[in-house]
Amino acid sequence: MSRANSVLQESLRELYLDSFPECLKLADLGCSSGPNTLLLLREIIDSIDATCKQLNKKEPMFQMFLNDLFHNDFNTVFRLIPRFYQELRREKGGDFGPCFIAAMPGNFYGRLFPDHSLHFIHSSYSVHWRSQVPANLVSEFESSLNKGHIYLARASPKSVHEAYLDLFMRDMTLFLKSRSEELVPGGRMMFTMIGRDMSVNLPEDQVANLWELLGMTISDMVQEVLLFTISACLLANAYLCACLLNALCELFRIRLYLIAVAQMSLSVKQLPGLIEEEKLDDFNLPFYMPTPEEVRHVIQEEGSFHVTRFETFKVNWDAEMGDGNLRVRGKYVAANIRAVSESILATHFGEEVMDGLFERFASKVSQYMELHEGEHFNILVSVKNR
Amino acid sequence: MSRANSVLQESLRELYLDSFPECLKLADLGCSSGPNTLLLLREIIDSIDATCKQLNKKEPMFQMFLNDLFHNDFNTVFRLIPRFYQELRREKGGDFGPCFIAAMPGNFYGRLFPDHSLHFIHSSYSVHWRSQVPANLVSEFESSLNKGHIYLARASPKSVHEAYLDLFMRDMTLFLKSRSEELVPGGRMMFTMIGRDMSVNLPEDQVANLWELLGMTISDMVQEVLLFTISACLLANAYLCACLLNALCELFRIRLYLIAVAQMSLSVKQLPGLIEEEKLDDFNLPFYMPTPEEVRHVIQEEGSFHVTRFETFKVNWDAEMGDGNLRVRGKYVAANIRAVSESILATHFGEEVMDGLFERFASKVSQYMELHEGEHFNILVSVKNR
Repeated sequence: MSRANSVLQESLRELYLDSFPECLKLADLGCSSGPNTLLLLREIIDSIDATCKQLNKKEPMFQMFLNDLFHNDFNTVFRLIPRFYQELRREKGGDFGPCFIAAMPGNFYGRLFPDHSLHFIHSSYSVHWRSQVPANLVSEFESSLNKGHIYLARASPKSVHEAYLDLFMRDMTLFLKSRSEELVPGGRMMFTMIGRDMSVNLPEDQVANLWELLGMTISDMVQEVLLFTISACLLANAYLCACLLNALCELFRIRLYLIAVAQMSLSVKQLPGLIEEEKLDDFNLPFYMPTPEEVRHVIQEEGSFHVTRFETFKVNWDAEMGDGNLRVRGKYVAANIRAVSESILATHFGEEVMDGLFERFASKVSQYMELHEGEHFNILVSVKNR
Repeated sequence: MSRANSVLQESLRELYLDSFPECLKLADLGCSSGPNTLLLLREIIDSIDATCKQLNKKEPMFQMFLNDLFHNDFNTVFRLIPRFYQELRREKGGDFGPCFIAAMPGNFYGRLFPDHSLHFIHSSYSVHWRSQVPANLVSEFESSLNKGHIYLARASPKSVHEAYLDLFMRDMTLFLKSRSEELVPGGRMMFTMIGRDMSVNLPEDQVANLWELLGMTISDMVQEVLLFTISACLLANAYLCACLLNALCELFRIRLYLIAVAQMSLSVKQLPGLIEEEKLDDFNLPFYMPTPEEVRHVIQEEGSFHVTRFETFKVNWDAEMGDGNLRVRGKYVAANIRAVSESILATHFGEEVMDGLFERFASKVSQYMELHEGEHFNILVSVKNR
């Protein structure tokens, strides 16, 4: 990740030397909410501060807009700001800045700021999220085209892949156009996202990404439901046979049997921690991991930006974890994925299955990491507004 | 309040005709958090929309900054925004705006925005709150100078009044200077606040404001504690006398007596719903109701603004309530005061006395309104940046 930092430093320095703005106006798109939310701003301030000291120039003011969706917890971020300001004043002295931290809630697939009102836009691991689920993932017979998966998997049909790619191209075109209108001419943007590496041929026994493993975990839970249903049916059948054999099939017994079957099918729906098959088939993640070529292509097609840096790098699923046994590492990876996907999964599958799902997912990740190295493929892009 | 609205319309119209900005940048200082928070923005948009239609001009974009302190509940406001945007689009059509609603948390007695970055600043019933409690409300012997009151009362000594006025002048000077730096030249500001009317001589049996009544309610609760303490002491004394008279004052009995006294003084501290005297003496509201002359004076002294409108008007304590019996009207007034002061009172007096305090306050308000008319004296100021 230090590579991302050096690209950040470089684009800020170039931006600042281009125009020496009195107030540097910045935005962080997809800022989330937590103790790390303000870290980026601190890095930006330190970087500009160093440049100013070198050139013996007065530091600019800073206006930072934190952006995320309307339901993001901005209150928590706001409560961290007084201490942030305090530390800045203590370390940089009273003359520094000032620095103004604002929030701009909303969807970044569309306009968020007035024309030419920003110098620098940053987005870290957010633009791989799509604006919605691709609309055309259902066949003409109303059955799911991506049956058994939650995202593109090796077995997903070509039409599903095309639907995801098409949505990516439309989303990113709107994203780039909006950002270009919001940035001053010559303004910079830098974004990092998870992509997919097509340069290596994936062996049959490996997954392309963590979503595939998560999809497999959900599928396992569906199988558990099916197994339960089958054994319940067998049991009920055995009971009916016994009834027939005993030639005791009076109306009363049959009614009892019907009640038993109804109760069992009801209990499948309420089975704690398990998932019904249709729920899995109906679900697709609003996420897309593009190839580097697809990213380059959409930037070129949209045409507002000139690419200044384009890098790809790999990061282990359990990076920052250091050493640790496989079980702990599996839990760590599962917790990270839970943090970014729980709200969307819980809305569809229900809050009550989340604990079971992510426990099973942690074991699946551990088992996988025993045999293979799990890596995210990252794409980092720095662009300049024409 | 319709008068405030007509002043708002007028200053917006003049502002717009002065400069025809492409994007109208606005701030609402002390926006609070609730269903009314976005009402002002809607009024502003409708007003500018009407002016544009008259002149056959394209509507500008709008960028609105909602400001309040760091602990304000902005999350709740943000969740109301999608519907606000939706209604705007439906009513005004897709071409309108766009309108961008951001939040800028922080203390308005100091800078909040970059230089010359706003066209219009609005603040409704917020600038009567002070940045802090006046620092010098304690005598050289460490005793409270405003004993028995929570704010300036008729009986408060002159030095307390001077301390409040001095803080008001310093706060407002900083407020005006900050806003003047943030507004474009010719930018407008409008604020409404509660003031005090010195043009009428208040009869002896009337209070100057609701805080005086609230202070009296707290004082009542202190008296209840004193009464309890006195009767407890009398009881204990009677017990001791009985002991002496019986010539049975062995060590054992005296020990029992001491335990009884200790328990009673303990129970006074824990008396549910009552308040200790020192707590009342230590407390002063960070609030000041200036006279119109004091407001004019500070604007003139600070010098950045030219006053375009200066109005005063009275509003009944229970305005908007319509008719209703006295008990209901008292409850309504108490609920309003509770909404704006509970957090500050609960921090000092404790969460557990709030219900008791505001119940007693509601009855006190009802009793008062049976005899007198309770009115807020309002000051409305509209100014133009030089």
